[in-house]
Amino acid sequence: MFYRINMGDLSVKSEPGEQYQGLGGRALSSRIVEMEVDPSAHPLGEKNKLVFATSLLAGTGAPNGGRMSLGAKSPLTEGIKESNVGGAMGMKMGRLGILGIIVEGLPKEAGTYVIKVSDKGVALENIPELKGLDIYATVAKLHEKFGEKVAIGCIGTAGENRMAAACVGFTDMEGAPTRQAGRGGLGAVMGSKGIKAIVADDSGINKITFADEAAYRVGAKKLANALLTHPVTSQALPAYGTGVLVNILSEAGGLPTRNFSTGRFEGANDIGGETMAAVIKERGGKTGHGCSPGCMIRCSQIYKDKKGAVLTGGFEYESIWSMGANLGVNDLDDIAMMNRLCDDYGVDTIDTGVAIGVAMEAGVLKFGDSKEAIDLIHEIGKASPMGRILGAGAAITGKVFGMRRVPVVKGQAIPAYDPRAVKGQGVTYATTPMGADHTAGYAVTANILGVGGKVDPLSPDGQVDLSRNLQIATALVDSTGLCLFVAFAILDIAEGLEGIVEMCNARFGWNKTVDDYLEMGKQVLRDERSFNKSAGFGEGTDDLPEFFRTEKLPPHNTVFDVPKEDLNTVFNF
Amino acid sequence: MFYRINMGDLSVKSEPGEQYQGLGGRALSSRIVEMEVDPSAHPLGEKNKLVFATSLLAGTGAPNGGRMSLGAKSPLTEGIKESNVGGAMGMKMGRLGILGIIVEGLPKEAGTYVIKVSDKGVALENIPELKGLDIYATVAKLHEKFGEKVAIGCIGTAGENRMAAACVGFTDMEGAPTRQAGRGGLGAVMGSKGIKAIVADDSGINKITFADEAAYRVGAKKLANALLTHPVTSQALPAYGTGVLVNILSEAGGLPTRNFSTGRFEGANDIGGETMAAVIKERGGKTGHGCSPGCMIRCSQIYKDKKGAVLTGGFEYESIWSMGANLGVNDLDDIAMMNRLCDDYGVDTIDTGVAIGVAMEAGVLKFGDSKEAIDLIHEIGKASPMGRILGAGAAITGKVFGMRRVPVVKGQAIPAYDPRAVKGQGVTYATTPMGADHTAGYAVTANILGVGGKVDPLSPDGQVDLSRNLQIATALVDSTGLCLFVAFAILDIAEGLEGIVEMCNARFGWNKTVDDYLEMGKQVLRDERSFNKSAGFGEGTDDLPEFFRTEKLPPHNTVFDVPKEDLNTVFNF
Repeated sequence: MFYRINMGDLSVKSEPGEQYQGLGGRALSSRIVEMEVDPSAHPLGEKNKLVFATSLLAGTGAPNGGRMSLGAKSPLTEGIKESNVGGAMGMKMGRLGILGIIVEGLPKEAGTYVIKVSDKGVALENIPELKGLDIYATVAKLHEKFGEKVAIGCIGTAGENRMAAACVGFTDMEGAPTRQAGRGGLGAVMGSKGIKAIVADDSGINKITFADEAAYRVGAKKLANALLTHPVTSQALPAYGTGVLVNILSEAGGLPTRNFSTGRFEGANDIGGETMAAVIKERGGKTGHGCSPGCMIRCSQIYKDKKGAVLTGGFEYESIWSMGANLGVNDLDDIAMMNRLCDDYGVDTIDTGVAIGVAMEAGVLKFGDSKEAIDLIHEIGKASPMGRILGAGAAITGKVFGMRRVPVVKGQAIPAYDPRAVKGQGVTYATTPMGADHTAGYAVTANILGVGGKVDPLSPDGQVDLSRNLQIATALVDSTGLCLFVAFAILDIAEGLEGIVEMCNARFGWNKTVDDYLEMGKQVLRDERSFNKSAGFGEGTDDLPEFFRTEKLPPHNTVFDVPKEDLNTVFNF
Repeated sequence: MFYRINMGDLSVKSEPGEQYQGLGGRALSSRIVEMEVDPSAHPLGEKNKLVFATSLLAGTGAPNGGRMSLGAKSPLTEGIKESNVGGAMGMKMGRLGILGIIVEGLPKEAGTYVIKVSDKGVALENIPELKGLDIYATVAKLHEKFGEKVAIGCIGTAGENRMAAACVGFTDMEGAPTRQAGRGGLGAVMGSKGIKAIVADDSGINKITFADEAAYRVGAKKLANALLTHPVTSQALPAYGTGVLVNILSEAGGLPTRNFSTGRFEGANDIGGETMAAVIKERGGKTGHGCSPGCMIRCSQIYKDKKGAVLTGGFEYESIWSMGANLGVNDLDDIAMMNRLCDDYGVDTIDTGVAIGVAMEAGVLKFGDSKEAIDLIHEIGKASPMGRILGAGAAITGKVFGMRRVPVVKGQAIPAYDPRAVKGQGVTYATTPMGADHTAGYAVTANILGVGGKVDPLSPDGQVDLSRNLQIATALVDSTGLCLFVAFAILDIAEGLEGIVEMCNARFGWNKTVDDYLEMGKQVLRDERSFNKSAGFGEGTDDLPEFFRTEKLPPHNTVFDVPKEDLNTVFNF
């Protein structure tokens, strides 16, 4: 069932949504945005819509299958945006039989609305006392009110203040808001609509139905086997978290350091996954923590401070990089504090870290000054002019400070892999309809990890094909609700992909082939590009900022040299 | 002769510039940018170029013929930009035989360079003591160093700080920096290149040569007669300045008030040209002041404060509006102070006023609070975070504060005519390659003033044709160096246009027809649109912000309803 919430008259209506049947996750959210949102709409205006979309495998408990998608026109990129997230919400909404919730319009009077999802359907409640609360406090209040077992997604003050880099925080299986729909400023869209939170209570629901439950179990087992076999998903990630990449990327010369001025960070080992795991062990935190139901990789963690109090969780490589190497900071506790503050005020750690890096280059503070960086993040919480600049993301920060070395594509900050040293990632950043996004086509696999083949990261050759294939596969994975990390396993173990196909088919009684699913992935990209074209993205917007093509990155001293003409062939399918 | 300055090696080279012969002003600057600047260049980066282009009639002393053009890729719009300016510079550079100066590259080391133009050619000098000076102080220093008779164009701290709304200030005939190449942030481009000022000394030059001086004089006389005959150019503008429009537009319901929330301002008469003229008379200032050599309209003025000290000059309708009605401010002295401060720090009054209006709507300060508005402009001078936000222009200010009612097109603030009540202006704002710009096709003529025919300002009918014709004619006028206000006369008096054609033909020995000149105007628009297309402006970018189409403007309660499809036909020629 779909639910449509009109904030103009505060109505909630259900509808079958025939036109969206057979779609899930990113395929669903992007289709709804493409079909229903005027591409010229102001992202914070009445015509934009915020979509919560459950995935094809939502509610099944599939291995690593708990993710859901949020979609809208992005205030950060001014294009279409899908931001997917782990945590407990996707599973609960799936179990409740909800395919999507579409929030439309703007409230006539300011309010602090909560979308309540349960076996009674979807309802809207104004809870004024949530106004002005940050994410951890909002979650505490909502748990108090609705019980400890509900899943919560909510915005902090950054979202309420409509900051363009505002995220939406979601609770994990322990109820802590350690997961974020981080990118593209969907928290600001939520804030513009007066929605503070979405709360799902799946009590009273037993289990969902399958067209062929036995076949589903066979498929699930195949995927589980692949995940338990592949060394990345069964060893590296559970042991060290995604932070295991810090040393790997620094070694490869692709760890953007001090606002993308070099690719190797002398403090990499101080902030890498190995060190983090040791610190966690010493202080009694937790590694090998799963972020959502069905997770078999368990790359998340609980990170405690020196006194043993929980400081943060879901402390990812991207965040460790953006507020670590990218700022010249090698103090893991300070980075953890920044991560916590971003999660609490509700801003994307990538865009915020990159924005602070740009501010460092502008002379606002010194590279390496983590105390001052923490203070700046507090400014976001205060919504001071400086805080609002950073909260608007790296592109706006660069504009405000008149900088030219601003690592963004389509208004969104470039993540933790320098495109001059990991050129497949560069192709993805330049071309994905999402704005710079590492997950949209994670070429680190073949470029750096030797997963799914090998493509020399420093050569322009083969990167377009690599990125194209990964972008198609990713659009599919993002539609199933599976964590993208299953890609590590399925790229090398054919049985894993078979399992995914079998699970989806068995869920709905389909007979789709791998090619059918890949066609779904292609269609997602077509939908998204169609929206962006109508939203004004013209010739040449699929490219990297100038300095990546002109400024050599140490230690390899390479520039990004995939020809622009080749970038224009990425979507030739 | 053309001069090419490379800031990378500080070289200055002269060249004949065969490829640019027969072009002047906007036709020349836009052609150079279109031919030489990579559309994907970062506006503040090495590949952008800053062009100073003299006009077809430069140096002739033609009636109202003293203007020149600056061009570059704009940091404000990210598209092509031509900003033209009066004052003494155009005449002197023309007399010195300079067609254009093209500034390329970025300096390897920071400097505060001055471009010196004289009968010895063009030279570059580093004058470190100018660093950090605002425009009035810079001009004083340069007059001290180079004499009172030189013409000066320079940036203030806003330009040095690469603020995207930074202007370039130029001296008038008395040597005061009351004229600005205001729009599109060309001051930031100048700042990025380390250029603080351009100084022209035409001593030693007698007069320029004409192919047929007698014919030139006949043409000049025709234009002069038209200017001395038409009531707008011979009576209204000299007596009251452009501020005469305040009451006219308020009466017409098209004076955007309090961030474009109504079209009529109750304080209009307090700040209009009639009141200004009376205040000036009382305090011993000057009305009927000419801003550039050959000016016969003399719509400028010298405005003194209550104590009789000169406060500002070139106090235009657009500035009076942007910091008056648009802010709900009816204190002319406070507006004059804001105008002075913008001119001194070096930011565009239109984008700054509109940015403050957006900040007022965001709750940063109250509508009508002119003292706080003055303080905010001082923040621009301090380059504080708040000052940098405003100095980056209205579009960025809107982004930073998460606002949706942000009156901008292509990143540039919409000027003093509400597009819902002056719909021909709306078409111009939406479609001109310059970003929102009233001068690019000034439909106020037929919409409001009954000049050049009449087109109902509230009807969508006829506006596209009106704007198209005006945009073509304007591109031509901007290429001749004539003040756009000659349009008032030539739209109604055929002899005026004949005079322009005859002057240009006689200057160069051409036999061009009116149609030939109009073709030049069309080609300017083609050049500019070609650049913008390659710079990424795609489908749908020629439109107004959503709220103009959805929110009715009192008192007429109309929306902007020229269909998007019709807007796409503006350049069908």
